[in-house]
Amino acid sequence: MIEKTDVLVIGGSAAGIVVATTGKSFYPDKDFLVVRKEQQVLVPCGIPYVFGSLEGSQQNLVPDAVLSNNQVGLKVDEVISIDHQNKVCETADGTEIEFEKLILALGSTPVAPKWLKGRDLGNVFTIPKDKRVIDEIQATLKNCKKVVVIGGGFIGVEMADEINKLGKDVTLVEVLPHILSLVFDEELATEAESALESRGITIKTSDGVKEILGHEKVSGVLLSSGEQLEADAVILSMGYRPNVGLAEKAGIKINDLGFISVDEYMRTSHSDIFAVGDCAEKRSFLTRTQIGVMLASTACAEARIAGMNLYKLSAIKTFGGTIAMFCTVIGDTAFGAAGVSENLANERGFDFITGIFTGVDKHPGTLAGTHKQMVKLIVARDSGVLIGGEVIGGPGTGELINLIGLAIENHMTISAILTAQIATHPLLTAPPTAYPLIKAVEIATKKRKK
Amino acid sequence: MIEKTDVLVIGGSAAGIVVATTGKSFYPDKDFLVVRKEQQVLVPCGIPYVFGSLEGSQQNLVPDAVLSNNQVGLKVDEVISIDHQNKVCETADGTEIEFEKLILALGSTPVAPKWLKGRDLGNVFTIPKDKRVIDEIQATLKNCKKVVVIGGGFIGVEMADEINKLGKDVTLVEVLPHILSLVFDEELATEAESALESRGITIKTSDGVKEILGHEKVSGVLLSSGEQLEADAVILSMGYRPNVGLAEKAGIKINDLGFISVDEYMRTSHSDIFAVGDCAEKRSFLTRTQIGVMLASTACAEARIAGMNLYKLSAIKTFGGTIAMFCTVIGDTAFGAAGVSENLANERGFDFITGIFTGVDKHPGTLAGTHKQMVKLIVARDSGVLIGGEVIGGPGTGELINLIGLAIENHMTISAILTAQIATHPLLTAPPTAYPLIKAVEIATKKRKK
Repeated sequence: MIEKTDVLVIGGSAAGIVVATTGKSFYPDKDFLVVRKEQQVLVPCGIPYVFGSLEGSQQNLVPDAVLSNNQVGLKVDEVISIDHQNKVCETADGTEIEFEKLILALGSTPVAPKWLKGRDLGNVFTIPKDKRVIDEIQATLKNCKKVVVIGGGFIGVEMADEINKLGKDVTLVEVLPHILSLVFDEELATEAESALESRGITIKTSDGVKEILGHEKVSGVLLSSGEQLEADAVILSMGYRPNVGLAEKAGIKINDLGFISVDEYMRTSHSDIFAVGDCAEKRSFLTRTQIGVMLASTACAEARIAGMNLYKLSAIKTFGGTIAMFCTVIGDTAFGAAGVSENLANERGFDFITGIFTGVDKHPGTLAGTHKQMVKLIVARDSGVLIGGEVIGGPGTGELINLIGLAIENHMTISAILTAQIATHPLLTAPPTAYPLIKAVEIATKKRKK
Repeated sequence: MIEKTDVLVIGGSAAGIVVATTGKSFYPDKDFLVVRKEQQVLVPCGIPYVFGSLEGSQQNLVPDAVLSNNQVGLKVDEVISIDHQNKVCETADGTEIEFEKLILALGSTPVAPKWLKGRDLGNVFTIPKDKRVIDEIQATLKNCKKVVVIGGGFIGVEMADEINKLGKDVTLVEVLPHILSLVFDEELATEAESALESRGITIKTSDGVKEILGHEKVSGVLLSSGEQLEADAVILSMGYRPNVGLAEKAGIKINDLGFISVDEYMRTSHSDIFAVGDCAEKRSFLTRTQIGVMLASTACAEARIAGMNLYKLSAIKTFGGTIAMFCTVIGDTAFGAAGVSENLANERGFDFITGIFTGVDKHPGTLAGTHKQMVKLIVARDSGVLIGGEVIGGPGTGELINLIGLAIENHMTISAILTAQIATHPLLTAPPTAYPLIKAVEIATKKRKK
């Protein structure tokens, strides 16, 4: 069977949805079709919350109405090959879909390293964006007492916290000296560790996994230190790998880190084929070097940009690289980061200063629900330009890290932030006299003068 | 007695504290002295929350440690005259204080219009930043059943909501067709009205107060419509007037709206005398016209700028006019605004388009505590520059309005916002696929194309 569409999107998660709906919105005369493998699509960032905060994956679905309401077609099927010369894709059910423009939103797959003995045992799981697997994990966990989570990145931390909410005995294992250390410096990472520990989670840092033990089903985890942990289930959160097989097979260029190469308009080596989201090349906003950070914020920004540039390039709607904006919650404490951490700034060779201020997220601090709020900023010494920020706080942390991210994206200097206006309200923010972002900038300014 | 300081600050509320501490931080070798009348200083924005959310004004004090910890001196006394030629101030206790630089942070006084008959009756109050009066109001309200709040600006709205929390029968009277209509357009104002009404507050709009009735003590309020309301207490929240008497007497220039005239460094007509906060001239960020909006965000930005420019002007640390950023909470619904509303944009003569998007502040929306989130944006048609924004939402609203304010301050265009990166998290923000700020921009972009 032969079908025809103007724009074909492969992949139906966040990036696929956003590229299709944005594209349709800017090119309403074109037909848009999303092809995806999954019967139902999970809200990707919501997956850890299926386990504790929600009743199950049914509460974490993206309704297909986001496509149909925007006049975007949907076909549940798997694209198995791309013929870029004839502009046609073949699907598993034998359909050929002709297109003018193709967008690859292929996503990523969790890593279960080949060297890890025992990774195929029963009750050893990775966390893919796949409802059936997530449902299986949830069913399995019901009968487990001891769960070991391997990898203290954000998925590992969120999974540990959520499984702990089910009353399980959870241990989180991280090979680096601190959890979340790719995004947070020590000040914040140790607070995240304390927050998890205060909730009853055991944390093992500076210790890797050597082997997963058991016969058929997992019974324990052997760590590099020699320590052995009992386990009824193991969650591997050891990173994700971009899905590029389909692109590679079609002769589309893959970069050194294994992502599909793209330009600033999100075009691949074939100008009518775009790539967005986890499968697409990531570059640092600050250095333009290739990086491997996968985040929904980046994916959706890329998707919007691809969608707007599909038929006509706009020189002002380009992707300038990922600012790596991120936030998460442990208990009632939220953590966020944008741009570089101090560690990363050192690694990248920046000359910088930092400013840290700790205050409260309401005022007066006697109000019920007041939460400690800490802001750390990383500032380029010569220019005074903000290049990174980290936040600990309450429910406003998500938007506060967006505020810091937007300041980075606008190349704001600390002088500009010092003179910026900030709305404050007793129940919603820090006080106007001690707004942590401003105070941290003030501290950095003084260091810079020295 | 003669005292001497390098920098003398008159006024000890938010602006006075921030100008003194910022100044000391940038000029550590100079002596700073704050002179204020009040024994104890209330957190200004926290005043309405004394009545319902806090136990009393004791929980809403600014500790004097914010001055002493920053090596700023404090004298509780009243400055009664300024001799700008000899650079000396005289206080009520007969002290003469010599200064190099003087900063006027004189604040504002609530208005009880002279034409309003009955305004001097017992149990008729305005809301000054004065602990003794606030304590008196709180004591009085204990024995009241029916309270009428006159004036539906933010102080009136917050007072009405807080007094309602005490179980009182509260009526809010607003002469304009909607409450909060100086900052919000009708879409948001009507939601604020519904939020108050659902909490049991009666709202009378398009109706002014004609007379306050009673003998010695208030017994009721006569409205312009002829309707008569019973009242055991009346709160007048009919605006504030800048305190400029001291400056006027000293020959310092006062502007057409009655504020102390200042330049972009916050200097008055006498270059060694600065003015900041409610008493200082306000100009619109967008039009540079004089306006009368008093907000802590403006006051503190002005105070930081004055503090940094005290001895050496910095051409990049100037005040570019108020963006009028504002947020408040009714029940669990927060409201925020920055820049111009649609009404104000029309009034000022802008050619503009708007974009409104309504979504949710968590994702999936099945998560406990998910709140509706609405963003309305006002965009200049020709340039695509963002000039205003309004938000309804949950606890993230305060920082979200700051994000919009920062975008306005950076003269961001809708194209720049469309390509911006936004961190999202299930428990903290809207979904990455439907972040209301981005979606509202997208809607505005499409309107602009037409």
